[in-house]
Amino acid sequence: MVLKLIPCYPCDHRDQSAVLTALDYSTKYESPFTEKYFTQTMDHFNFNSVGNGSYSQRYLITDKYWEKGYGPIFFYTGNEGDIWDFALNSGFIMELAAQQRALVIFAEHRYYGKSLPFGKESFNIPFVGLLTVEQALADYAVMITELKQQLAATACPVIVFGGSYGGMLSVYMRLKYPNIVAGALAASAPILSTAGLGDSRQFFRDVTSDFESYAPECRDAVRGAFQQLKQLGEQQEYSRIQSEFALCKTPSSPKDVHQLNGLLRNAFTIMAMLDYPYSTHFMGSLPANPVKVACDTMLSGPDLGVLFTGIVYNSSGLLPCFDLYSLYLECADPTGCGLGFNSMAWDYQACTEIELCYESNNVTDMFPPMAFTEKDRELYCAKRWAVIPRPGWLKIQYWGNALSTASNIIFSNGDLDPWANGGVRKSLSSSLIAINISGGAHHLDLRESNAADPVSVINARKIEADLIAQWVKMERTRSQQSL
Amino acid sequence: MVLKLIPCYPCDHRDQSAVLTALDYSTKYESPFTEKYFTQTMDHFNFNSVGNGSYSQRYLITDKYWEKGYGPIFFYTGNEGDIWDFALNSGFIMELAAQQRALVIFAEHRYYGKSLPFGKESFNIPFVGLLTVEQALADYAVMITELKQQLAATACPVIVFGGSYGGMLSVYMRLKYPNIVAGALAASAPILSTAGLGDSRQFFRDVTSDFESYAPECRDAVRGAFQQLKQLGEQQEYSRIQSEFALCKTPSSPKDVHQLNGLLRNAFTIMAMLDYPYSTHFMGSLPANPVKVACDTMLSGPDLGVLFTGIVYNSSGLLPCFDLYSLYLECADPTGCGLGFNSMAWDYQACTEIELCYESNNVTDMFPPMAFTEKDRELYCAKRWAVIPRPGWLKIQYWGNALSTASNIIFSNGDLDPWANGGVRKSLSSSLIAINISGGAHHLDLRESNAADPVSVINARKIEADLIAQWVKMERTRSQQSL
Repeated sequence: MVLKLIPCYPCDHRDQSAVLTALDYSTKYESPFTEKYFTQTMDHFNFNSVGNGSYSQRYLITDKYWEKGYGPIFFYTGNEGDIWDFALNSGFIMELAAQQRALVIFAEHRYYGKSLPFGKESFNIPFVGLLTVEQALADYAVMITELKQQLAATACPVIVFGGSYGGMLSVYMRLKYPNIVAGALAASAPILSTAGLGDSRQFFRDVTSDFESYAPECRDAVRGAFQQLKQLGEQQEYSRIQSEFALCKTPSSPKDVHQLNGLLRNAFTIMAMLDYPYSTHFMGSLPANPVKVACDTMLSGPDLGVLFTGIVYNSSGLLPCFDLYSLYLECADPTGCGLGFNSMAWDYQACTEIELCYESNNVTDMFPPMAFTEKDRELYCAKRWAVIPRPGWLKIQYWGNALSTASNIIFSNGDLDPWANGGVRKSLSSSLIAINISGGAHHLDLRESNAADPVSVINARKIEADLIAQWVKMERTRSQQSL
Repeated sequence: MVLKLIPCYPCDHRDQSAVLTALDYSTKYESPFTEKYFTQTMDHFNFNSVGNGSYSQRYLITDKYWEKGYGPIFFYTGNEGDIWDFALNSGFIMELAAQQRALVIFAEHRYYGKSLPFGKESFNIPFVGLLTVEQALADYAVMITELKQQLAATACPVIVFGGSYGGMLSVYMRLKYPNIVAGALAASAPILSTAGLGDSRQFFRDVTSDFESYAPECRDAVRGAFQQLKQLGEQQEYSRIQSEFALCKTPSSPKDVHQLNGLLRNAFTIMAMLDYPYSTHFMGSLPANPVKVACDTMLSGPDLGVLFTGIVYNSSGLLPCFDLYSLYLECADPTGCGLGFNSMAWDYQACTEIELCYESNNVTDMFPPMAFTEKDRELYCAKRWAVIPRPGWLKIQYWGNALSTASNIIFSNGDLDPWANGGVRKSLSSSLIAINISGGAHHLDLRESNAADPVSVINARKIEADLIAQWVKMERTRSQQSL
């Protein structure tokens, strides 16, 4: 029996553009957004570089609700994927724009989607070197400044929004460019863990917690099944593994079993992150409450089958078998890079600035021990991209937890989200505000309102709307005083 | 008669290391500083760049007054020259260190002095591309972070200091890295004019004001003399020009006369900037009150001679004649780049990020009309360095005049300094404080106390000392609260 839990084919943690085009073609073209391109500086930080010129950066824009020349600008700082994906899964921003008469812009992150500075060669060395957080932020700063001029919107306060890595970028925009952005809503932004501040066990511990919270037996079932898989591997019962997991090829080495473990762990990660109370089509198509669905299924199945039935990479039901190496790629992000160009870009970022050395260990979590140390990262990244990561750099550059001089930032997190505890969970001041969304998964608050929303997210959005309205008002006062 | 006003040979507005070595060899080695080198990341913003490695960045350090592990760190953000030059001309920082028991570090700016990332090839394309403000700031952020670890000084608040472009860097450090620096004393930092916010006529107007303030007749004499030179040029009386100005070669074209005008205007600029009340050996050796000395001399001399006697590039008296093209080079900074490696670096910075399009026009100033438009800059910089300047970038990156979210910065300026009105002259908040130093030239407050100091600078230093002590105290409280 194949459960339609993880739907994309091929499953891609980060790049859902193909899936989106197939599934949501009409949504995309019925949306209020116009797709445009901005002539962007290729290299903001080197005037004699390989990229001495400009590239076309995609952005989506809608003035449907805008009070022209006066209403605020809500600017989504695009993250690791096709910008349409974020625009179509962040309906709250449109709801807020309607309330506050805002212009809405979703800007695509360089090296993702269609914003490839060197086209197909973008991921060749040395061209890939222009993929950094700093370049992305400078892109947004320059784009906002120039679009405000073009749109006769220089008096309009700008609020930035982002989820996950996009939320980190929103925070960074407010830290580094408060001259340009008046405030930031950072949803599910793990700014601490990705800067090396945290516990490498936290992430998979918190994935485990979600399953455990639903039912301790569910956690035990998963752990038991991984244990069985381990034994089958040790006994070299590769045919049995192939048949249990419907693999296309018979595994033939511990490496293959390791790969299978990674693929399985990733499926649990996705279910925990995207444990929304209604079905979604964000990173693949998921049913409502996928953790519940998975646990119910697993607890009703045979021992090993729980893994098989619970976390299938085949929602379409079209795959006759599973190819271990085309459905999942190990990369510098143990929570998954996905497949395709976008995943290459994310792998590069995880190899350079973003620190994601998370481990599972089967003690603090239910997964097999799978370490990913700074040393592992170094070896992998040197080989893959000819780079040496610089641990500590992100903390220096984006302040780590020394945020006391910052202001006008909301750090929202849902307690179902394994990324949450990598972020800011307690308010740091009257203008650095942490919001906890009980029963919320990964940036639930950015999604459009839904009848199944828990009251916590309804309240969170109200607080967010109020704070953003205040920031806009403050910014108007400030800019009038400085005239 | 040759007046020893502008003493260096060859005269170099920015690079005085050779002069220093000759003049102040003993001072340098009797100073409390130890010269060290820091292994610095070559390219902070590209993991696959031409500079994939490290370079040796020079810094000077003294713990003479430091309360080890507790006292603050006073960190000078080195600017466009040999770091010894700044260390030996910023005695106030040592006086303050003695009072406040601080560790003192003077860090050399990359591409200046001995901190050449690619040695002799540093100014070749594309190697010169790693010379940017952003790289310099990242150097300082990384250096501070690592030295604090090495010196068991992680609990010690850091205050940054800088004069002129170094003051701009101090401001930027506080804006971009408040996680690392608790406050900044920015002396004579033209953060507004260099970001394109200001009037292109301001600089030479204010140079003129200094001479006019001493005596309107002095201004008139200078203007008249330039007028005479112009006539001689138009009449092609090149031999007369050669003899009047003791030039080594007979000028032979309007270009040569233009070059002479540039050289002469530059001498007035230096006198105005460095119009200290006692003799100095900073950018060359100057007598006390050079503007007064120059004016007195000029007003007692024959018409054309006023320019000749007043602004000689030959304090040593050893030069038998003046070579127009070896004593002064036109570059992207109309206030002067100097000669040698350091001047090449500064020219590159003026061709990329730092906007210095100042003109003289003989209406709002006493100099011949010499324009330097954004278009002139573009043409020059494309030809010289194969770069296209990006006007507006510095304003985006370092906030322009939108500084309201910043804190703990002192903007000190002397009213004799032609750079002053390119900076912040009025306090913006209770923690963004402008200090005016009446009768003060270019960052006089950073110099060591002198019996000839005007009372204004004595008071300024007291205010600065108090504010810095407060910031250090605040930072201790803050960091204890966040523990």
